[in-house]
Parts: sequence; C-alpha cells; structure tokens
Amino acid sequence: MDLSTRLKHIIVDVPDFPKPGILFKDITPIFDDPKTCALITQHIVETFPDIDAIAGIESRGFFWGMLVAQVLEIPFIPIRKAGKLPRPTLSQSYALEYGTATLEIHQDTIQPGTNVLIHDDLLATGGTAFAAAQLVNQVGHCVGFSFLVELAFLEGRQRLEEFTIPVDAIAIY
Amino acid sequence: MDLSTRLKHIIVDVPDFPKPGILFKDITPIFDDPKTCALITQHIVETFPDIDAIAGIESRGFFWGMLVAQVLEIPFIPIRKAGKLPRPTLSQSYALEYGTATLEIHQDTIQPGTNVLIHDDLLATGGTAFAAAQLVNQVGHCVGFSFLVELAFLEGRQRLEEFTIPVDAIAIY
Repeated sequence: MDLSTRLKHIIVDVPDFPKPGILFKDITPIFDDPKTCALITQHIVETFPDIDAIAGIESRGFFWGMLVAQVLEIPFIPIRKAGKLPRPTLSQSYALEYGTATLEIHQDTIQPGTNVLIHDDLLATGGTAFAAAQLVNQVGHCVGFSFLVELAFLEGRQRLEEFTIPVDAIAIY
Repeated sequence: MDLSTRLKHIIVDVPDFPKPGILFKDITPIFDDPKTCALITQHIVETFPDIDAIAGIESRGFFWGMLVAQVLEIPFIPIRKAGKLPRPTLSQSYALEYGTATLEIHQDTIQPGTNVLIHDDLLATGGTAFAAAQLVNQVGHCVGFSFLVELAFLEGRQRLEEFTIPVDAIAIY
C-alpha cells in the first residue's frame, strides 16, 4: 500500500466541523501509528532533501515541521498567529472569508538567502500557505510547499502557482 | 557543558511578555540549533524510557511530544484547547487567574491502562499540567511530567506532588 492510500485509510472524515457543510479531514489518528508518522517524515525528507530550513504553520504544521528538521539537522521555523511570538517579528496579513488574519515569524529566525520549505497539514484554498510564503520571502527564499492533505477541488495548488516552486501533498482528495 | 546550562544559554528572557511584569522565557531560539533539539529529545527518552504514550499540551508541548514519540515508537497524544478537536472528546476544566480554561483529548486516543507521560515547554504554577494529568487519568495512567523549563519560585512542582509521580525539568530558574 502506498503512503497516500495508507494515509487515506487512517484520516477520519468528520462532517460539519468546524461549521455546518465542512467535511473536516482529521489527521490526529495518524499520531496513534508511529510507523506511518515515520513514513510521512521520510516522504517529506526525500521530496525536499536540499532545504536549509523548514517552516511549520501553527499549530498542525508544527508536528512534521519539527520531525523533518531533526532528520535533516536543519532549523525549524514556527510560523505563528499574531501576538504569540515574544520578540520583534516580521508579519504578513491575508484575507479570510470574514476579516483578515496575520502570520508572524521572529525577525532573526531566517538568515538572508536561506532556502525554506513551508509545511502545513492541509492545502485548502491556499490562502494561509500563500501568506506564509510571502512572509518567508521577506528575508529568505521559499523553495517548496509540503502538505499532508490536499483538497484539490478548492484549487489551492493553482493559487500557489505564481511562486513557481514545487507543491507536494501526500493524500489528495 | 551540561544540557541545563546549554539551554539557559539559548533561551532568551523577554521582559513584559505577554503582559507587564512577566519575564517570558522564549524557547524558540532552540529551534535554530538541531543538535540541542536532539539532546533534549534524548534527555526525555532516557528519563522516561518505559512510557506507552506521550501527551503534549497545545501548542509548545507539541514539539518534543512528537519527537519523543517517534524515537520511542509510541503514540503521540495532542492535548488541545476546547473546540479544536473534531471528534468526541474527554475534557478537563481548570481555574485561571481570571475565568477558566478547558483541555481536551479525543475519547478514543488513550486505551485503558496506558502509561502516559505529560510534556509541556514550561512548568509555572502547574495549573495546566495538573488539569492535563486529571484528563489523562480519566482513562489512562499519568506516570510522569516532563518540561523544558521550570520557574521554581511559582511552586508548580509542589502543586503536582499529589500525583506522586516523577516531575522532570531541564532548565530550572
């Protein structure tokens, strides 16, 4: 069984979460299965072996962000929601369905010229990942996007095309 | 240099965060140093080698929760704030300075009898860790507490004494 199929067997569909009409892909059952966790890490490492750092988007991007960083022995960059990081930050705001959201990284966390992979659990419309790449590109180079799950009908991959860098997702729906 | 000293060299004191009068211990510079990240993982694994699962408290408990789980090849349990987990949950509320907070885990994430280590970045007053242990003990056995940083003057360790299980912190202030 390939990793995509394996993931699809483990991920649980939860209807009407977080609101009516949304079919939520719950990745938390993966955490019960150490072997699959390791295969995901290996997949990301093999897909993006030459990165200088990996940035994980709060909070579900933290899980494999940290695991991949340790296997490649590179820095991990937490991309957090506004107000969570205590020292001076760079920030990037973006539009949500209602209102706006802001992502932040510490100002000193990326050195100029660093090649950074952006990782999150889910690619939906791509709005968060797009803003994360803009944020990283303020000082470094975003060189790829890595997701566990892609909801292809929301066309997030098309939205990220303007960065002209690889977009990888393991389980595509 | 021992690991405690090493951590204290890396952790940054940030005055008046998140509010005036608080001296915040910023652990994020550790993420820039893959070797120290690995030494922390190794320390936790060697301190608690016989656990069945590790529970990390949202969101800074996720980092080493996941790393330790992978080294020991055991499940990782995310303990999340109320409303974040999509399926039926167990919950535990606790008092904050103003109001209350609630921690949740998925109902099916801990099997009866499982020996669970609770991990978070910081031991302060111990209120969150205490509630996390109560939550885990609804179905499993909390067998230890693991922290990166302990603020000893806030006496969180004393608060956790009633569980009569080991409490480990790497950098104690």
